[in-house]
Amino acid sequence: MVRWEPGAPERLQKAALALFAARGYEQTTATEIAQSVGLTERTFFRHFPDKREVLFHGQQQLVEAFLAGVHDAPPDAPPMQVVAAALRRAAAFFPDERRLHSRTRQTVIDQHPALQERESHKLTILAETIAGALRARGVDERTAALAAHSAMTVFGISFAQWIREGERRSLADIEDQVLGELLALHTPAA
Amino acid sequence: MVRWEPGAPERLQKAALALFAARGYEQTTATEIAQSVGLTERTFFRHFPDKREVLFHGQQQLVEAFLAGVHDAPPDAPPMQVVAAALRRAAAFFPDERRLHSRTRQTVIDQHPALQERESHKLTILAETIAGALRARGVDERTAALAAHSAMTVFGISFAQWIREGERRSLADIEDQVLGELLALHTPAA
Repeated sequence: MVRWEPGAPERLQKAALALFAARGYEQTTATEIAQSVGLTERTFFRHFPDKREVLFHGQQQLVEAFLAGVHDAPPDAPPMQVVAAALRRAAAFFPDERRLHSRTRQTVIDQHPALQERESHKLTILAETIAGALRARGVDERTAALAAHSAMTVFGISFAQWIREGERRSLADIEDQVLGELLALHTPAA
Repeated sequence: MVRWEPGAPERLQKAALALFAARGYEQTTATEIAQSVGLTERTFFRHFPDKREVLFHGQQQLVEAFLAGVHDAPPDAPPMQVVAAALRRAAAFFPDERRLHSRTRQTVIDQHPALQERESHKLTILAETIAGALRARGVDERTAALAAHSAMTVFGISFAQWIREGERRSLADIEDQVLGELLALHTPAA
């Protein structure tokens, strides 16, 4: 009998992060994560293939936020305006109340090469997905790749700034600034 | 008794790639790789922690090529000129005779998420190392990160082009073109 657990993935993710941060990633098992919120190991594995993936729950929604931004940009918007719109849409995925969670998650990831690899690859996949969406708008392959990877550069650097201790600005505001700095860095001085 | 095997890592890497490509990555063991070139499993593990790492032999030399390019750039060169120099130096690491090897390696990597993750992370580490070298030249933290990640965007896209079937241009020539396209994409139309 499979009982549907409302919000189980989110509860498991929250519990996993608390345990990883308190005890260490290596020292925490999937069973312990499940038990800490009154769920079974079986429920855990219904939602996640392994404990590493708990930290990447929500990746698909982030991809979809970026894609929605690409799709909703005006048809004649140049590629960098399209990715700016996608960055803004994705920023809405990280409201202020999520900042502490994201900071804790990053601290766990920074301590484990296997998690860092997974995180780096997440950004690569995001870049490739955005590039695909740009091509679907008629952008040539090279330009699509350059624009998509530039978007990930801006996203990665902005996100790292957003979760810093003491940072109060929204992710969208930081992204706007970082994107402006990227374009200025690449524009020849007059 | 430990016998020094001249060029053992290179021989193991070449053998591993041949076996991965012919039989599959999952189906090939470290012992088989070693035996195929008359070496022992013990020799294998003296050089590599596991079979995955064989595919990343040479990473440190690539990092050093990028760093040498950064260090040798004129002290007053702006950040994007410094990374252009680093890209050119790193391109020398991939002469024409290495193209087929690199293409085969990429084919193996593309088929396995664990290898893709390791490869994505390699580029992240490269970006962070270059950013550190730029900071050591007095470049501010944000600019260093943007320039270094832009360099990895150019490197990654150029490298993918360099190993395409039928491509004949050098990696350095492709990088020059891609870097020019990146800067043009980010420069507002006059």
